[in-house]
Amino acid sequence: MRGAFLSFEGIEGTGKSTQSGLLADFLRSQGHRVVRTAEPGGTPISLKIRELLLSLDSKGMDHVTELLLYNAARVQHIKEVIAPSLARGEIVLTDRFCDSTCAYQGYGRGIDRQVIDALDAVATGCMRPDLTLLLDIDVETGLRRNKEMNKNDRLELEDIAFHQRVRTGFHEIAAAEPERIRVISCAESVESVHEAVKDIVVAFLKQRNV
Amino acid sequence: MRGAFLSFEGIEGTGKSTQSGLLADFLRSQGHRVVRTAEPGGTPISLKIRELLLSLDSKGMDHVTELLLYNAARVQHIKEVIAPSLARGEIVLTDRFCDSTCAYQGYGRGIDRQVIDALDAVATGCMRPDLTLLLDIDVETGLRRNKEMNKNDRLELEDIAFHQRVRTGFHEIAAAEPERIRVISCAESVESVHEAVKDIVVAFLKQRNV
Repeated sequence: MRGAFLSFEGIEGTGKSTQSGLLADFLRSQGHRVVRTAEPGGTPISLKIRELLLSLDSKGMDHVTELLLYNAARVQHIKEVIAPSLARGEIVLTDRFCDSTCAYQGYGRGIDRQVIDALDAVATGCMRPDLTLLLDIDVETGLRRNKEMNKNDRLELEDIAFHQRVRTGFHEIAAAEPERIRVISCAESVESVHEAVKDIVVAFLKQRNV
Repeated sequence: MRGAFLSFEGIEGTGKSTQSGLLADFLRSQGHRVVRTAEPGGTPISLKIRELLLSLDSKGMDHVTELLLYNAARVQHIKEVIAPSLARGEIVLTDRFCDSTCAYQGYGRGIDRQVIDALDAVATGCMRPDLTLLLDIDVETGLRRNKEMNKNDRLELEDIAFHQRVRTGFHEIAAAEPERIRVISCAESVESVHEAVKDIVVAFLKQRNV
């Protein structure tokens, strides 16, 4: 018995957390056991790493330091939360996973894909979600939505071009794995995005007999 | 113009910090510009990582998380302290560097050498000190000295066998690079160890025309 591992991905302001919450409610209403989590975070050690990553005091952080810290938080997250939950047959919904590292540190920061992959191999053994919901929106709208939510961390300081590279990165990552990664436009209402997410997940679970 | 990069290594209780301080005083008295530093640490970001690594709250930390965090702290340490100091022609004395990672995470924790080396390549480009002073003492004496100094961190919780594996690791690492790594017994007095350190360093600097 193994549960299912689903990730939400996308740039800032795409509503990953909102959609993860709505999907969790729906799945629970269907009798599934669901664990909602988010990266970087999910465990006390990973949350300490998250603080360091997002703190405005960390402005001088080297890109490789950042990459190593995201991977460190992920190792602990898999060990303490993701792997045990899957082993208990639960559905794990995570807000961000490895595709964010590839998009932000690879495409956004410009770190070689070979380096990203080498660290992924060490940290996760190249673990991938069973299904990834990539929420997509244009960068300007995403950042505006984020601002309205008063988010203020180190990533917010990046310019539009950075977030544009990240969005392009997500598109290329999705194009390389169309079976796993499904792209959903979130320009429409929260409700219509939720319907699209639900349709994809219901079909996926049916196919997997979960 | 490039300075010289020297590291002190060894298990707990070998007096690395004391010897680094005495050597710095001596070198300064000879007119050298010296920067003393220590790992994990040396920068605000690296010190935050150090807190997390040594905190008793981090007892459930995965060995790979730990390895990634030591490397993250090192990247930042090289960028902010070691590389700029060497570029200014200074002598950098660090209490611990890459050999500690190999000894503690490799020999102590049992992580594959291949994984240790892959991360070292990403984090430091396999950077090595010009000279390493490996202070050596039997594990029981080292731990007893440490206890007398009231040190109390996560590493102290490890058993004798762990520290024994680390000491053996240091010996094997030193045997593989006898030119770079000089082993100094520190069973004798602080002063006699300092004399031995001084002799090696003076000869090294003379040879390098520093």
